[in-house]
Amino acid sequence: MAKVTLLGTGIMGAPMARNLAKAGFDVTVWNRSPDRAEPLADCCTIAGSAAEAVSGADAVFTMVENSAAVLDILFGAHAAHAANPDALWIDTSSIQPSVARDCGAKIGRFLDSPVSGGQKGAVEATLAIMTGGEAADFAAAKPYLEALGNPTHVGPNGAGQVAKLANQQIVAITIGAVAEGLMLAQEGGCDPAAVRTALMGGFATSKILDLHGERMLNRNWKPGGPLRMQLKDLNNALEVAEAAGLDLPLTRQSQAAYEKLTNRLNLSENDHSAYMRYLEALNPGKRFGTVEDNE
Amino acid sequence: MAKVTLLGTGIMGAPMARNLAKAGFDVTVWNRSPDRAEPLADCCTIAGSAAEAVSGADAVFTMVENSAAVLDILFGAHAAHAANPDALWIDTSSIQPSVARDCGAKIGRFLDSPVSGGQKGAVEATLAIMTGGEAADFAAAKPYLEALGNPTHVGPNGAGQVAKLANQQIVAITIGAVAEGLMLAQEGGCDPAAVRTALMGGFATSKILDLHGERMLNRNWKPGGPLRMQLKDLNNALEVAEAAGLDLPLTRQSQAAYEKLTNRLNLSENDHSAYMRYLEALNPGKRFGTVEDNE
Repeated sequence: MAKVTLLGTGIMGAPMARNLAKAGFDVTVWNRSPDRAEPLADCCTIAGSAAEAVSGADAVFTMVENSAAVLDILFGAHAAHAANPDALWIDTSSIQPSVARDCGAKIGRFLDSPVSGGQKGAVEATLAIMTGGEAADFAAAKPYLEALGNPTHVGPNGAGQVAKLANQQIVAITIGAVAEGLMLAQEGGCDPAAVRTALMGGFATSKILDLHGERMLNRNWKPGGPLRMQLKDLNNALEVAEAAGLDLPLTRQSQAAYEKLTNRLNLSENDHSAYMRYLEALNPGKRFGTVEDNE
Repeated sequence: MAKVTLLGTGIMGAPMARNLAKAGFDVTVWNRSPDRAEPLADCCTIAGSAAEAVSGADAVFTMVENSAAVLDILFGAHAAHAANPDALWIDTSSIQPSVARDCGAKIGRFLDSPVSGGQKGAVEATLAIMTGGEAADFAAAKPYLEALGNPTHVGPNGAGQVAKLANQQIVAITIGAVAEGLMLAQEGGCDPAAVRTALMGGFATSKILDLHGERMLNRNWKPGGPLRMQLKDLNNALEVAEAAGLDLPLTRQSQAAYEKLTNRLNLSENDHSAYMRYLEALNPGKRFGTVEDNE
């Protein structure tokens, strides 16, 4: 039975550890704040340190907040990589592509393997998984990744993170498309809730129209995906675009909107469907929907 | 058995007439060029003029190219409305909301009821149908509309057409989102075909990522939905926005892109997924994918 370690049992990592255990792997977990690992005691071994957790593991997952947290666990204070340099290291965090490439250069077998689908996808093991690295390492990782969702090998190290940025970029712009469409519908004399229902099934159908369109109608701005994270992702996407010499006008326009929402309208902890509130700020006197804000 | 007439048996109207007949209605059809009506002889009565076709009908569908063609059939050369003013008139064409409101004012029972889903949706009777008009007329039309797809009542006359514009606006911007995401993925070192596959199932999933994303990878620019029609819809959407005093930045940015594609790059007959070629024109030296153009 393969031994798998997962470091970082937060909102995403905890259900992922549970699904790895459910798939029959011998799972050990560790979290910086130990109380967030404890609820996994029924299905996983809980280690006292990151180095202890990875010792003897065939594969090690990391699922933490950002590039700095990944580097701190691997090579910094927690020195996890030195404790088991031969394991297959799989980072499912969303970090900068350049940092993922650096990790790939330093670690013998490393996959950058960020996910999309949120907590729901993590719990239901239906995550979209975008993996960068060597084909042989991807093949070795596949049984573990398939316990979490649907993995696809998209290129060498860094490519998984670029694919995640492309995902976030499409999400950000599509949220804007849905907000502008529903606002036009309302101001053009339609019942916007009926329009959302009518459009589902046609070419405009998307997970965003379904889930975030409903959030807009309910003015439900509780995250979900907070605006500050959406802005971070768009900034990273534009950094990749600039490095490649690419001008992407809708991405640029969206970044400006999410920047205004986060830093000037001070809505950084609102869900990214609050793009609607950018339209309201841009069009004084216009207000979408009929209910109170829920934030 | 209710008598239903359909005027305009083109690429959309012909399969719609067939589905009305399949649902058990007594269907009569007419088309300006009679040869396009003839293939329906196995299931419909073919009339020699629009006025003859509508005589005695309980409900009359129109499905033609644009506002001018609708007005010509109803009140112009073909004078169909005068031949049966008491019928329930259902216009499924995509026309300007203001023209739909005018028709509603002139006709006792009129529904503007445009559709989304293309020829495939028309053949499979899975069209998304957005209907504007009186609630009682919508209730009377529902059995006919349900033979064609999924109808939703979205507001008074004109609202169906505004909802269709919102649909087209979301489609146009989402195509741009997918093109910019896939271009970033390619230039950031990913296999863009693998990225499209990986993203299906995550939050970025849409019918556009599925169908138009695949078109971009195949550089399949044969319409589908030609750029000139997409531009017309965006111009009409911006007209509604302006009348309502609304600024919609992504819609504006998209209109500029589709305008350049149609009028300056002379790609008016390319499918709207050719937004990718706007990105290529904007970024000299960048080319998406590895295959020849198919147009």
